[in-house]
Amino acid sequence: MPLPLNGVTVLDLTHVLAGPFCSMTFADMGARVIKVERPGGGDDTRAFPPFKDGKSAYFAAINHGKKSIALDLKLDADRAIFDRLLAKSDILLENYRPGVMERLGYGWDSLHARFPRLIYGAVSGFGHTGPDAKRPAYDMVVQARGGVMSITGEKDRDPVRVGASIGDIVAGMFLAQGVLTALYDREHTGKGHKIDVAMLDSQLAILEHAVALTTVTGKPPAPSGARHPSITPFETFHASDGLFVIAAGNDVLFEKLCVALQLPFAEDARFATNPARCENARLLKRLIEAVTLENTRAYWIAKLTAAGIPTGPIQDVAQVLKDPQILARNMVVDVLDRNGRAAYKAAGNPIKMSDVPDATTRAPAPDLDGNRGEILRWIDEG
Amino acid sequence: MPLPLNGVTVLDLTHVLAGPFCSMTFADMGARVIKVERPGGGDDTRAFPPFKDGKSAYFAAINHGKKSIALDLKLDADRAIFDRLLAKSDILLENYRPGVMERLGYGWDSLHARFPRLIYGAVSGFGHTGPDAKRPAYDMVVQARGGVMSITGEKDRDPVRVGASIGDIVAGMFLAQGVLTALYDREHTGKGHKIDVAMLDSQLAILEHAVALTTVTGKPPAPSGARHPSITPFETFHASDGLFVIAAGNDVLFEKLCVALQLPFAEDARFATNPARCENARLLKRLIEAVTLENTRAYWIAKLTAAGIPTGPIQDVAQVLKDPQILARNMVVDVLDRNGRAAYKAAGNPIKMSDVPDATTRAPAPDLDGNRGEILRWIDEG
Repeated sequence: MPLPLNGVTVLDLTHVLAGPFCSMTFADMGARVIKVERPGGGDDTRAFPPFKDGKSAYFAAINHGKKSIALDLKLDADRAIFDRLLAKSDILLENYRPGVMERLGYGWDSLHARFPRLIYGAVSGFGHTGPDAKRPAYDMVVQARGGVMSITGEKDRDPVRVGASIGDIVAGMFLAQGVLTALYDREHTGKGHKIDVAMLDSQLAILEHAVALTTVTGKPPAPSGARHPSITPFETFHASDGLFVIAAGNDVLFEKLCVALQLPFAEDARFATNPARCENARLLKRLIEAVTLENTRAYWIAKLTAAGIPTGPIQDVAQVLKDPQILARNMVVDVLDRNGRAAYKAAGNPIKMSDVPDATTRAPAPDLDGNRGEILRWIDEG
Repeated sequence: MPLPLNGVTVLDLTHVLAGPFCSMTFADMGARVIKVERPGGGDDTRAFPPFKDGKSAYFAAINHGKKSIALDLKLDADRAIFDRLLAKSDILLENYRPGVMERLGYGWDSLHARFPRLIYGAVSGFGHTGPDAKRPAYDMVVQARGGVMSITGEKDRDPVRVGASIGDIVAGMFLAQGVLTALYDREHTGKGHKIDVAMLDSQLAILEHAVALTTVTGKPPAPSGARHPSITPFETFHASDGLFVIAAGNDVLFEKLCVALQLPFAEDARFATNPARCENARLLKRLIEAVTLENTRAYWIAKLTAAGIPTGPIQDVAQVLKDPQILARNMVVDVLDRNGRAAYKAAGNPIKMSDVPDATTRAPAPDLDGNRGEILRWIDEG
């Protein structure tokens, strides 16, 4: 059965995380992704730990199913190959610092004139316009400057970074969305677009509640630990053997919670409404924990789930990878090595689509320049 | 100038955050989004603080540019309207608990038989398959169960939630990506797909490094505060007036940093490589801060930026909303009220596309059922 992006070719100059994450999602949906790497070392993440059999599991987790060719875009012979690849590609992706592609002679204006159907997707720290366009950035810089760190962590302690690299990944996802929008548009216009996504912009785009709050009240929100800032109870609680979450998002759920925990709060004005509960959040937490500490997490999760209350464990990543629901959803896949053996585990594709097979394995991540012969033959097919 | 999704109609049954975030991104790209709400209260977020002039700024931030009609899908008359809307729509979005649409007679099988071109996008806590499909979830439940909380926070302290609602938003973004993929596919096959995105799956999908580390070493990573877990120096540092970030992601950047800070580490084996620096991260942090505490954040950010080192402030959301780069990128837009006046500020569209105007304002968020007449007339156009 064909995959939705079968027949689509992605010429992928990106490295590290934001861009490669984007092209990985295209490969998962059937696109041919040709990773163009610099000769010598290739993508920096080939040298990122952890390693297995001398190869980076980090690189494999993001680059499975892609093909690799090493090209030096400053050499005429390699540029000739690159030009022929451009002529056969639907999408070009790059995450250089703004201006680099222009200096190489592959800026958008020139590419668009030569290849009007080509879609050009760029992801960078600060975008291709604005006063800071040419500054370098990493995930951590945009997490800090973009505001998410200021609302993550404990009250009255220093902010912490989000443990996942959402500075990169969210930008890669917006890039994917922009490129797919352009691909649909091209069906009607026959013309490609340039898509310019900034990691910094993308951080602001996910701050929904904090932006609304700040613009209306003038006061930026502070971090609130493991609590939701404006819903109570909606936080972590201690059971006898560790932490779990109760998310009673409205009055009905709170009533159900009181019944399940046998807490006599039905007539208690301190907890009658969400605003009242927020005001008395600390007290309510103590009163709930006085009950939850009496039994295990598993006990409470089963009991509250039966009562229809959103709840769940805090899991470390090893536990997540064994979670029955995660496994039932095919969210842990085997990345194969060149001999077809399962070499690494990686996250599966979260986009489940009817009539589209959701493979339980992934083709290997490419060796640097490992598909040169095959790619050159494909060019010659004309 | 037409927007890429002009002519695409989205029938949007979603409420709260994940689904409405998805349909917002479609509206920003020109789609007609018809929000179908339950009579009486409508979308729960209409009652979410903060309020301005009696209306929720939270709701406005996510639902600008959409049209609203109130329908009770259990009433025949309203079902007749909904059926006519389905016949004119390209995309149906819903975020009910799995099984609800089937009970209403609008399950995928039946819809696909009646409207073979219709694309059906569903987002739910745990997805439409697997043992926990029917459990309720909120953002916090999937942040906890999905692993991101276990790597967010300070070492040896309780985990914290990510301040942004990435449990919802990342799922909404994967849904958008799936729907756009299906929209492109439909150009070739004439057929719609169902897309089933789970918030829990989506959390695993963004844990790149943590998944690789856990599967190779067998040991799940712990939270590491404001530090990157495997790159040093890549964390926050104190200047004389507060915290800022230095992200020296490789040896070259570290050498530049030593020059800029006048730190004599060129020959120091303790800091010669990234593994050595990670081993001595605590010491290195103290040595760097002994210098950075001597001057202000602005001083160091200017100096390190001039040296080509990724750096930046930790900004609260109020500061982000005034950041010159953010403003230059049109990332803070005015949401208009019905009189065409700027009523709220909201985040702009992070997907910047050539030849696609990036509007500086957004059409108002709809009143509940506020576009009934217009929508019914549009149905009658046939």
